[in-house]
Amino acid sequence: MSALEKGKVDGEVQVSPREVLRLAVEGTQQHLQETISELHEADIAEGMLDLSDREAWIVFESLDVERRGEVLSEAEDSLREQLLEQLTPRQIAEIVKGMAPDDVVDLLALSSSETSERVLRNVELERAQELRRLAAFDPDTAGGLMTTEFLVVELGSRIGDAIKLLKHGLEEAEEGQGLFVVDAGGKPVGYVPDRDLLRNSIHDTVDSVMTDPILVPVDMDQEDVAHQIVHYSVNELAVVDSAGVIVGVVSSDDAQEVLEDEANEDMLRMVGTSPELQTRLSIIRRVRARLPLQALTVLGGLVTAWIISQVLGETNKDADLLRFIPIIIGLAGNVGIQASTILVRAFATGEVEPEREGSVLASETMVGLVIGLLCGLATTGVLLGTEQGEDSERFALAIGAAIASAVTWAAFLGCVVPMVCRRVGIDPAVVAGPFLITISDISGTALYLGVAGLVVGV
Amino acid sequence: MSALEKGKVDGEVQVSPREVLRLAVEGTQQHLQETISELHEADIAEGMLDLSDREAWIVFESLDVERRGEVLSEAEDSLREQLLEQLTPRQIAEIVKGMAPDDVVDLLALSSSETSERVLRNVELERAQELRRLAAFDPDTAGGLMTTEFLVVELGSRIGDAIKLLKHGLEEAEEGQGLFVVDAGGKPVGYVPDRDLLRNSIHDTVDSVMTDPILVPVDMDQEDVAHQIVHYSVNELAVVDSAGVIVGVVSSDDAQEVLEDEANEDMLRMVGTSPELQTRLSIIRRVRARLPLQALTVLGGLVTAWIISQVLGETNKDADLLRFIPIIIGLAGNVGIQASTILVRAFATGEVEPEREGSVLASETMVGLVIGLLCGLATTGVLLGTEQGEDSERFALAIGAAIASAVTWAAFLGCVVPMVCRRVGIDPAVVAGPFLITISDISGTALYLGVAGLVVGV
Repeated sequence: MSALEKGKVDGEVQVSPREVLRLAVEGTQQHLQETISELHEADIAEGMLDLSDREAWIVFESLDVERRGEVLSEAEDSLREQLLEQLTPRQIAEIVKGMAPDDVVDLLALSSSETSERVLRNVELERAQELRRLAAFDPDTAGGLMTTEFLVVELGSRIGDAIKLLKHGLEEAEEGQGLFVVDAGGKPVGYVPDRDLLRNSIHDTVDSVMTDPILVPVDMDQEDVAHQIVHYSVNELAVVDSAGVIVGVVSSDDAQEVLEDEANEDMLRMVGTSPELQTRLSIIRRVRARLPLQALTVLGGLVTAWIISQVLGETNKDADLLRFIPIIIGLAGNVGIQASTILVRAFATGEVEPEREGSVLASETMVGLVIGLLCGLATTGVLLGTEQGEDSERFALAIGAAIASAVTWAAFLGCVVPMVCRRVGIDPAVVAGPFLITISDISGTALYLGVAGLVVGV
Repeated sequence: MSALEKGKVDGEVQVSPREVLRLAVEGTQQHLQETISELHEADIAEGMLDLSDREAWIVFESLDVERRGEVLSEAEDSLREQLLEQLTPRQIAEIVKGMAPDDVVDLLALSSSETSERVLRNVELERAQELRRLAAFDPDTAGGLMTTEFLVVELGSRIGDAIKLLKHGLEEAEEGQGLFVVDAGGKPVGYVPDRDLLRNSIHDTVDSVMTDPILVPVDMDQEDVAHQIVHYSVNELAVVDSAGVIVGVVSSDDAQEVLEDEANEDMLRMVGTSPELQTRLSIIRRVRARLPLQALTVLGGLVTAWIISQVLGETNKDADLLRFIPIIIGLAGNVGIQASTILVRAFATGEVEPEREGSVLASETMVGLVIGLLCGLATTGVLLGTEQGEDSERFALAIGAAIASAVTWAAFLGCVVPMVCRRVGIDPAVVAGPFLITISDISGTALYLGVAGLVVGV
């Protein structure tokens, strides 16, 4: 059944595959089995993110060993870790038998080195050696991205020989969309897509149909490898060692994952948070990921406040309050733009479906409250230590309280603005940046002056 | 020759393909011909961006008609427009003969409807009809992304028949990595990759080897189509009309381009600029793309300044200056983050190589100066109309001058910080956001108070 059909209960209503899984897990074991047998592994892996740990395990247990491997290959790291913890090394060894070696290495990298060692001891000797060799490459390079299950033909071979090789090669021939042609020294000199093997006479040599291969060194950064695949519009490229000999193959679907991750990572790093599925993390982990930027902002804001007091000399009550506007605007702007960036990406990748909006709004606002309280406390602490004068304690408290409220408000806004945009059909990315910052600056300042004014009594 | 070999002049020094082209265009016609014959079309299209219009045309003229089509398929829109202007409709018609229909439609969308009409009149009737039909789809949907050159086999066919179809199909069989299996009504019910045609007996039916096809409706947004391809890790998916009949095929390299463009677009839109190759645009066009956000920021800043004066009531000179800090911080922060975001993406996609850094720094700082002057003038104008008091004119001028200098400085910083990061090997995305904003807030405030202080004489 297709993705399209699966999503349709009748001709009109579309139910997402993850929703189908969520409903099935609440039903009978037989109904669950039937549903799972019709779902794609990628949908099962995604749908399991919405389930409790116990429910996810029930789903995983209903799968046969081959599909367990496929689900593990497709799953997010957090889910993989969770499932690996519940499996014995012997069970893991059984599952990884049917998986591509590069997927196995990625998976074992998530378990403890002790577990991973015990898994490898349960794997066939030759394969274990191959896995160890592959695991030695930096995971962010071509070596970490490539598969070592590939076939090559020698220069001068006939197309018929190449087809025979594919027919009799076992795991090595299962994946891939073409063959690299190598010289006697193992250096790739050509590439023949499967389509050209099918379209030409079996008596022709591969030399007469091959095209220039794209080669990358084994230590090339994986993002550069992905850009090579996009730039040259190829399905596969060859990874070569320092002697120019082919050691692996990277395919375009490996590249796609890298490109998608890279875009997310760049965007999330630019706003000072970690490149993970933020809306799936606990509130504590989200706060921890975003706090360093806020600490930097508090520090910068305090320096700015100090500069202002130096330039203006003796201050009065009005100027005292205004000195801290940069901290407010900075913190509120950061927290708001972090929330909105996370949502824009989460909308684009399907991480936050409409039905999850409520819980994401609540948890992100809570993240804002925690960050606001921490930054407010820190600022109050610094001011208690540095400010002199009769009202200084009250003043320090006022600034802290104002920071906490402005930051919480900004986190709330940072979620609501993109959510409203999506509902009314405006591209959230266009509005979330510029528009949000402007609203957040104005309302943050007003809120700050209001709260601080209440406490100090300006 | 491979991409790797091409980049190497000897064993050590790597010269990028675009550099190779730049050097060749300065040499003899014969040397140019030889160089071009060894370069990949994707590299020629990219290298032409570094050339003058006249040089780019010389390179294009040295290509035969088939490679002209390939270079046009690979080129950025700005280069395509430039080349199309110099070609007659008859020449364009000749070139598009060998191109995939979806590429032709994209290309003709860039020329005037009159030119495009004249091109179509020079194209074979049947093909022209197909192109017109394809052009009617929204370019941002599955219909705009798909190719209509594909082959299908009917349910029950033998693998041998499928292979025969591929051998004898002409253009339809040139691209693609597999065949969709359809029922008697033309609805896709299976997919067989070429590899499985090669590995199984020609006497087997396609039914016995096919897998579930991934289907998308013709009006699905192209980004969602790309995410389907990544989610299900497939090489091709079928596009179906409202009756479920297959009307086109989208392949994974179409999806890759969409994903890369999408990531760029989201990031650039979030910072309020247009999703184009910013560093390749004229300064005027860059300013125009980024000005709306700055206008919004000036407006927001003026509202904030008004709120402050309302809350604080009667103001003094100190508070008067401080009221405008939000405008400064907002504008400087935006301009800085625009520049740094553009560079982070341009580094990731290879748009700005190290040798272009100097000219990009100069032009982006110039963009900052122009934006700074415009925003400064606008603010001065508003203040002249609204502020009263003896020193009000001087005050308005001071604020304007301070805005212009702080914004120019921020643009400069926004380029220098990521450039330095790249040189010393730190991920620019990690530093460019948080770190830059903090520096820009502090130095912008100091610069503002300094400049404004000088003029007003605080």
